[in-house]
Amino acid sequence: MIISIAFVVSILFLVVFNFWISKKSSGSKAMKDFSLKIREGSKAFLREEYKILFVLILVLTLVILYFSSAFAITFFSGAFFSLIAGRVGMNAATKANVFTTEACKKSVNSGLKIAYLSGLKASIFAMVLGLFAIIVLQSVFGDPKILYGFAFGASLVALFMRVGGGIFTKSADLSADLTGKIEKGLPEDSPKNPAVIADLVGDNVGDVAGMSSDLFESYVASIIATMVMLFALGLDLNVPLILVSIGIISCLVSILVVQHKNSNVAILGSLLVSGVFILGLSYLLLFSYILPILYGLVGGILIGFSVFYFTSSKFSPTRNIAKAAESGAALNVLAGLSNGLLSTVIPIIVISLVMVLSYSSLELLGIAISAVSMLSIMGVVLASTIFGSITDNASGIAELSKKSKVNCSKLDSLGNTTAAIGKGFTISSAALTVLTLLASFILIAEVDVIDLLNVKNMAALFVGGFIPFFFSSLVISAVGKTSSKIVTNVRSQFRSKKLDYLTPVRIATKSSIYYMMISVSFVVVLVVLVGLLLGVSVLGSLIAGAVVSSFLLSIFMANAGGSLDNAKKLVEVDRYGTKVHKNSVVGDGVGDPLKDCSGPALNILIKLIAIISLLFVIFG
Amino acid sequence: MIISIAFVVSILFLVVFNFWISKKSSGSKAMKDFSLKIREGSKAFLREEYKILFVLILVLTLVILYFSSAFAITFFSGAFFSLIAGRVGMNAATKANVFTTEACKKSVNSGLKIAYLSGLKASIFAMVLGLFAIIVLQSVFGDPKILYGFAFGASLVALFMRVGGGIFTKSADLSADLTGKIEKGLPEDSPKNPAVIADLVGDNVGDVAGMSSDLFESYVASIIATMVMLFALGLDLNVPLILVSIGIISCLVSILVVQHKNSNVAILGSLLVSGVFILGLSYLLLFSYILPILYGLVGGILIGFSVFYFTSSKFSPTRNIAKAAESGAALNVLAGLSNGLLSTVIPIIVISLVMVLSYSSLELLGIAISAVSMLSIMGVVLASTIFGSITDNASGIAELSKKSKVNCSKLDSLGNTTAAIGKGFTISSAALTVLTLLASFILIAEVDVIDLLNVKNMAALFVGGFIPFFFSSLVISAVGKTSSKIVTNVRSQFRSKKLDYLTPVRIATKSSIYYMMISVSFVVVLVVLVGLLLGVSVLGSLIAGAVVSSFLLSIFMANAGGSLDNAKKLVEVDRYGTKVHKNSVVGDGVGDPLKDCSGPALNILIKLIAIISLLFVIFG
Repeated sequence: MIISIAFVVSILFLVVFNFWISKKSSGSKAMKDFSLKIREGSKAFLREEYKILFVLILVLTLVILYFSSAFAITFFSGAFFSLIAGRVGMNAATKANVFTTEACKKSVNSGLKIAYLSGLKASIFAMVLGLFAIIVLQSVFGDPKILYGFAFGASLVALFMRVGGGIFTKSADLSADLTGKIEKGLPEDSPKNPAVIADLVGDNVGDVAGMSSDLFESYVASIIATMVMLFALGLDLNVPLILVSIGIISCLVSILVVQHKNSNVAILGSLLVSGVFILGLSYLLLFSYILPILYGLVGGILIGFSVFYFTSSKFSPTRNIAKAAESGAALNVLAGLSNGLLSTVIPIIVISLVMVLSYSSLELLGIAISAVSMLSIMGVVLASTIFGSITDNASGIAELSKKSKVNCSKLDSLGNTTAAIGKGFTISSAALTVLTLLASFILIAEVDVIDLLNVKNMAALFVGGFIPFFFSSLVISAVGKTSSKIVTNVRSQFRSKKLDYLTPVRIATKSSIYYMMISVSFVVVLVVLVGLLLGVSVLGSLIAGAVVSSFLLSIFMANAGGSLDNAKKLVEVDRYGTKVHKNSVVGDGVGDPLKDCSGPALNILIKLIAIISLLFVIFG
Repeated sequence: MIISIAFVVSILFLVVFNFWISKKSSGSKAMKDFSLKIREGSKAFLREEYKILFVLILVLTLVILYFSSAFAITFFSGAFFSLIAGRVGMNAATKANVFTTEACKKSVNSGLKIAYLSGLKASIFAMVLGLFAIIVLQSVFGDPKILYGFAFGASLVALFMRVGGGIFTKSADLSADLTGKIEKGLPEDSPKNPAVIADLVGDNVGDVAGMSSDLFESYVASIIATMVMLFALGLDLNVPLILVSIGIISCLVSILVVQHKNSNVAILGSLLVSGVFILGLSYLLLFSYILPILYGLVGGILIGFSVFYFTSSKFSPTRNIAKAAESGAALNVLAGLSNGLLSTVIPIIVISLVMVLSYSSLELLGIAISAVSMLSIMGVVLASTIFGSITDNASGIAELSKKSKVNCSKLDSLGNTTAAIGKGFTISSAALTVLTLLASFILIAEVDVIDLLNVKNMAALFVGGFIPFFFSSLVISAVGKTSSKIVTNVRSQFRSKKLDYLTPVRIATKSSIYYMMISVSFVVVLVVLVGLLLGVSVLGSLIAGAVVSSFLLSIFMANAGGSLDNAKKLVEVDRYGTKVHKNSVVGDGVGDPLKDCSGPALNILIKLIAIISLLFVIFG
């Protein structure tokens, strides 16, 4: 019932939204031109990426077909739908940027509305798509275990897209800053910087397309893992579907709040109102699960706000980093790294408590429900994250076409805040989802105990802890190598005085797809190898090691990067072009790939590891 | 028998060495003056530090006296002896530096001999002291369990000294580089840099005094943990003592090799010859334990050489970091971080194999023996590490007093290599020692299983993994804050044109002792709190989480820092003072505190956590 309502209202929303947005103005010719360039660049990247991924998916589907046709079907649909979620998200964003620039001329609020609703379109689409697919596949196959194929496909594609888009966006951003800001003293998004379009394309392919696939994957993995558990316990499989449907409807409720004229209230308020709405409706519809739902929601919000505290320029952690830039670039970076390390404190306490409390109310099922609950509010969170990328683009277009960007910049800084909160949710829900998958693993493998006193388990704990380090290394070095290539090109463009926006886009596309293939394949092969070498019995402890290490590493990276970024923005306000500013740009350059590339990818990676381990057990 | 031989030859060596070194020349008046300044600065730091630590030790001894007088005695002696080991080590080094400078005028080899033998003096003293104390205390109390008090005292003091000295040395180094190299373009160790004496003092108080206490603690903890296990199994308690005695004798054997005229052969050869010697004698004397001894030694050497590969400027990882400096400081730092993350790969594989293999030969006792075996060769490794600090000082004195430093520099770069290898040994043996302590914990607490499916254990795994992150954050931010203070002073000295070497030393002393107290107390209190809150039963899984996270983090930090340091040296060779060089100095500034401060301290920290957990169990 509530699920059907969610479907109907979402479809209504999508139709009305498309009609509404088609009537917006896209401003002057220059604005249209730049917007078109960004759009073309983004599409070109996605085209290249999808070509390769599609071949890969086909090959893998054939391999899986050898084991099981049901899994081949679910795997293929998971992968394919994940591609679609990414594409639709990116389309919405690349259309909305120029509308937002134009609307910002009128008021901050009109801009906010366009950007937020476009973000909402992407996130509602991803959620509804996932819900729909799961319902259909479950009714076809009747056993949620088979749907792990779907989760596998979705996670694999999401990881590829996160990594590929992440390398693109961060190498473009980094090289634009290194050459433009540090070497030439140009402002952000200056039309004189050849890497500027690549940078703006990056926001779409990394933060929007990557994020949309990421969200799709998160939903799918946690819903399916919960369903498997409910199935084993003989309980109603609809529980996670109902919870997510409530989340979808809460997205639409948030639209009412977003109209508020104070943009801080609008965005943060919409988060709180959605939370309360979800809690209220869950109280009515899912009363027997209300405790873990409460823990998941409150835990997610607490972690989100702790991320906000450690990364916002309003508070002392980030202010101290900006101050350290006065003594030198190295001290600035160290302050950022140290802040990132420290910022793991609240998330660790909260996640441990959510785990213990949820377990004490409904055992392993409690943990599963709390993970889904944390995700139920993600629609709103993601909408405000994509909102950040859109306003980033909008502000870029304003600068490029020499319009006033005051209002856009206001939205842009708000977008950073919401993006930070979003990261907190993603990381925490990933940890809980992995624990749910681990529970599922134990259930299917019929393991009674994962004993650390068994030396093999201890060794697997070490190896599991190592995987996130290894993967981060691959991704970070890929960003570094790609950036170096772009920097070389931009420098030669500066020397020749010819301006060519497209070559940096092309370089970034080629290089990031290459490194995406290498890093992801490497890690997937590693996990399969460990499974084959050490045997299925130790995979549980491998997952445990990986989830702890990945949780800590990704929070460290997200917050170190986020605070260095905002420290730079703080310095930029009144010391643009000074030595202190250049020091802070170095800090941002170090932090950015950590925050937007390796950090977020880790959350998908550990789920993928858990799912691969599950498939190991299922196929013996 | 072999133990007595070790005692006799060590004492003979110490006597002959003191006689031999007293006849060496200490060069010109300027050299003597600078050497004296370094010595006074080092002593002043140690005096301040020891004052506070002594009070702390007394207070803690009184507290422990309330529980058990035996533990109070062992605790006090462990702490006190650790202070002595640090003091003797530092004395040897501050005396040797100027002799080495003078001897280097004659030949690289004469310099090498003085520096190496002085290092050997420090390490042999620490080893013999530990051996002696353990034998006496064991014969007094008869139960090795009571000796955990000794290990507790030694670890606590070692951690304080590592952290205090580490903050001192790195903040002095960093601020000397930031102001001298980056802002003024002065060469390393220029007499015009007011922070230069502080920098050279740092080498002694951090790398030598800290390292000596560290070595003392490592021996003591692993020997006692092994004895507890042997005691429980009713086996001969002398096994680890014999193994360490063989190690001490092997140190003296290494003197023969160190005479070789090729200094690379001399140092690396002495390591290999000692290894073979230990293995040979163990084959004769400890045949039933030969397998874990072999695994431990080979594992240590493999990890040592992998560290060498990832940090030496001879190989591509470090060369690529130097190349990345061409594209900007941020890319240089990122390349270093990414290399550090990647460099965990071989240590993880090796430590997992050593664990599994040693266990398969002698179960938990096998792991304990392999840890002691890894440490048995540490005498030679430590001697060559201290050798590095002495030559660093020697080369500084040559520069300050305007003598040729060609030969000293050759030794200096060799010292970096051996220091890197030494780190590999320390980190790996720490991991194995913690596993031994964990085994001891299980034995005493009578735990049969540490089941990760128990949600409390899973939560404790998260919290344990968090501790190294938290601690690193405290230490790194302490280095940053102390550096900022020194930088401010040096800048004002540059402006006033008055040269005052002592103020930076005083600032560094005060600030590093302050932060030392805060960071160590904080973490110790945290562990005690977790024990009280979560209960003793989850401490096993807390230790497991901490050891995995700390192992990965400390290798990451050691190698990221080491490779950034050597990349800078590589750039310095032919591009001194260029932009690329300045970029690489930023990288070194970020890497240095990771490598020499938070990284090494983590190894002591996890042992301390394990020992505190043990005491929890022992005192109920």
